[in-house]
Amino acid sequence: MRMYDLIMKKRNGGTLTADEIDFMITGYVAGEIPDYQMSAFLMAVYFQGMTEEETLSMTNAVAHSGDMVDLSGIEGVKVDKHSTGGVGDKTTLIIAPIVAACGVKVAKMSGRGLGHTGGTVDKMESIPGMQTSLTQEKFFEVVNKTGLSVIGQSGNMTPADKKLYALRDVTATVDSIPLIAVSIMSKKLAAGSDCILLDVKTGSGAFMKTVEDSIALAQEMVAIGENAGKRTVALITDMDIPLGHNIGNSLEVIEAVETLKGNGPADLSEVCLNLAANMLFLAGKGDLDSCRDMVKAVIADGSALERLAAMVEAQGGDVSVIRDTGNFAKAPYSHKVVAKKSGYITFMDTEKCGIASAMLGAGRETKESTIDFSAGIILHSKVGDYVEEGMEIATMFASDEALFAAADAKYEEAVTIAPEKAKEEPLIFARITKDSVERFDIEA
Amino acid sequence: MRMYDLIMKKRNGGTLTADEIDFMITGYVAGEIPDYQMSAFLMAVYFQGMTEEETLSMTNAVAHSGDMVDLSGIEGVKVDKHSTGGVGDKTTLIIAPIVAACGVKVAKMSGRGLGHTGGTVDKMESIPGMQTSLTQEKFFEVVNKTGLSVIGQSGNMTPADKKLYALRDVTATVDSIPLIAVSIMSKKLAAGSDCILLDVKTGSGAFMKTVEDSIALAQEMVAIGENAGKRTVALITDMDIPLGHNIGNSLEVIEAVETLKGNGPADLSEVCLNLAANMLFLAGKGDLDSCRDMVKAVIADGSALERLAAMVEAQGGDVSVIRDTGNFAKAPYSHKVVAKKSGYITFMDTEKCGIASAMLGAGRETKESTIDFSAGIILHSKVGDYVEEGMEIATMFASDEALFAAADAKYEEAVTIAPEKAKEEPLIFARITKDSVERFDIEA
Repeated sequence: MRMYDLIMKKRNGGTLTADEIDFMITGYVAGEIPDYQMSAFLMAVYFQGMTEEETLSMTNAVAHSGDMVDLSGIEGVKVDKHSTGGVGDKTTLIIAPIVAACGVKVAKMSGRGLGHTGGTVDKMESIPGMQTSLTQEKFFEVVNKTGLSVIGQSGNMTPADKKLYALRDVTATVDSIPLIAVSIMSKKLAAGSDCILLDVKTGSGAFMKTVEDSIALAQEMVAIGENAGKRTVALITDMDIPLGHNIGNSLEVIEAVETLKGNGPADLSEVCLNLAANMLFLAGKGDLDSCRDMVKAVIADGSALERLAAMVEAQGGDVSVIRDTGNFAKAPYSHKVVAKKSGYITFMDTEKCGIASAMLGAGRETKESTIDFSAGIILHSKVGDYVEEGMEIATMFASDEALFAAADAKYEEAVTIAPEKAKEEPLIFARITKDSVERFDIEA
Repeated sequence: MRMYDLIMKKRNGGTLTADEIDFMITGYVAGEIPDYQMSAFLMAVYFQGMTEEETLSMTNAVAHSGDMVDLSGIEGVKVDKHSTGGVGDKTTLIIAPIVAACGVKVAKMSGRGLGHTGGTVDKMESIPGMQTSLTQEKFFEVVNKTGLSVIGQSGNMTPADKKLYALRDVTATVDSIPLIAVSIMSKKLAAGSDCILLDVKTGSGAFMKTVEDSIALAQEMVAIGENAGKRTVALITDMDIPLGHNIGNSLEVIEAVETLKGNGPADLSEVCLNLAANMLFLAGKGDLDSCRDMVKAVIADGSALERLAAMVEAQGGDVSVIRDTGNFAKAPYSHKVVAKKSGYITFMDTEKCGIASAMLGAGRETKESTIDFSAGIILHSKVGDYVEEGMEIATMFASDEALFAAADAKYEEAVTIAPEKAKEEPLIFARITKDSVERFDIEA
């Protein structure tokens, strides 16, 4: 077998066998297939696509290129959730405790933030003492005891994905739907859960800019998951506004706690209700309606919040900040962002909102940057709201007053104010299962 | 400027500026742009193509990546000729003397053979003492004195082409018409002649398998040449039969001499008449018909053959083999290839004919292989001929009898014998100028 022939086959619209894809991924990770052949192959995939079988084969090959997590030491059904990245996305910290409170295990590995997006692991580390790097033994112990654990990625997981992603990033082959699907699903297969809920973000701040592309990506990922023997569902959710009001690490934990108390913002609460209900549905806890009722019940009786507290305690975190979020360290400086004119907020560029927050110290520019956990933004007005010139539309927090000017300017760029109210978009555009695409954004 | 953005631009169907292409080629030759980015770009070009302006810019950038030959030390109009490679193609040795005899200079650099195709330089070196590596001073002196000189490539010409070709060869991006056009034309621009005649081979043994593809390639190359200020014409010629009867180095020189005496095979003589007439036309010697008459005249009066002899002498070769080709060293062994059945020869796979000849010692497998100048094949029957089972259809020559068995088997593979005569194909399918495509293979 020669890589040259595989490039030629794909270039000419052919279909690679599982053996050919294994040969390619194994050889690439071993350094036997050079980057210049792989990048030509990836560009050919950009133009020719991959079949469902090829995408599954490549996902399996990439998943098996490194450690495969074996969760059999944890009893019961394990459900994983993946989000394609977002600004102000604290849903994991809300839905994992909810799902655990309903009796379904969540043993989840999360990432760190980079650039304009935040990472769940960073948010958790804003809780004093919180450990996000656990041994497998300890990880299993926490899940078996509290029903959930969220930790950072460890070990040598999907090295092929890391190498492929680094190459795609410099060869303009990132935005290929099958390659995105392979990248995400290989990590999910390696992570070992039985069921996978995918939260595919759509809109200006997301990988996928249109609902159609998001659905296409979701369908490929659901097909991979199901073909690999994992129950898989995807929701297409809105990324054209930041979710909730808070952006920044401890600010987002505070909002997660409020949401688990039933006091969260409407948009965030609604999305979390649906994500959590779908995770329960995947785990076989009933139909979607009864799963929604279960979610509401564990919020109402406080048991979901208790699960968050239990996990924080089990992972060494200071549970007092969960019991009373007023105990979080506060940023020494704050800054009022005011509307420059009157009108309706018609658009918020979530990527720019994320960048503004990162400029305040809440994100990291490079992998080595340190994070200011108390920095961030609280949004008082969002898309659809009417604002008056001079009104405070957001508050910024930082440890250095000098950071406000540039972040304020970036935030102003992010927010569009116009005389007419924009058309309202649903929070959830579609739900994709292996057999169906249910759309909520168009007239039936 | 970043290579990433140029890949993205091409991938998305955009058009690169001359500055962008210069940046890319300069950076690639300097090693600043890595192979993995260039191969992704080349694959994007495979799918998205290049505009006439882009192809010209890239040809100029590649031509200027190394030495540009300055032929101004040679008086008069200089005409170059390029063939896209062939088996049994000894046309350069015939048409260069013809053109020179008509008063137009030919200062030509030729290649060596590799694999199944022969190279003009190798054929010339079968003449004892013949020098194919001359200083520029000597090269100019020979052209000014005899009207022509053919030498091997020297110096640092088109290093970008060498690097790009090596990369395309391992990334399945060779057969892209704009990239082939850039590769050929960059070398022609660097070689410094005023006019360029392109002999684009079509058929089973050629780069371009169909007349349509050959015409498309020819049009791109003619456009590049004309846009670069060189008068350029292309002929599309048949590659579905080996040209003439002889394959092998001294065997082909012998056939060239016979053709210059007016005793050549009909197909070879006809093609050479047209190639030479077009070179004279490019040099402004008159319309095509009068140029054809000039060609016939310099063959009839022996002056074309005298030019070949003069060049051989000027380059140190033993002119006695030209005066009497019986003076060439002969292969010690010969072998009769017989027809395995009766019928018409309907097809000859020229690539396999070339391989059979190379197996006898006439070609080189690697750049380091040495060539047996006397080895080769004389074809007695070609496409269209009726043969009887057991009849001698070819004679093979070699310095080692053990080589005949495998070469005979390969030749048998190359030749198809069938009960019905195949449709006759023209030798020249089309003539392409900057303003016209004249086809000779279809009814008007």
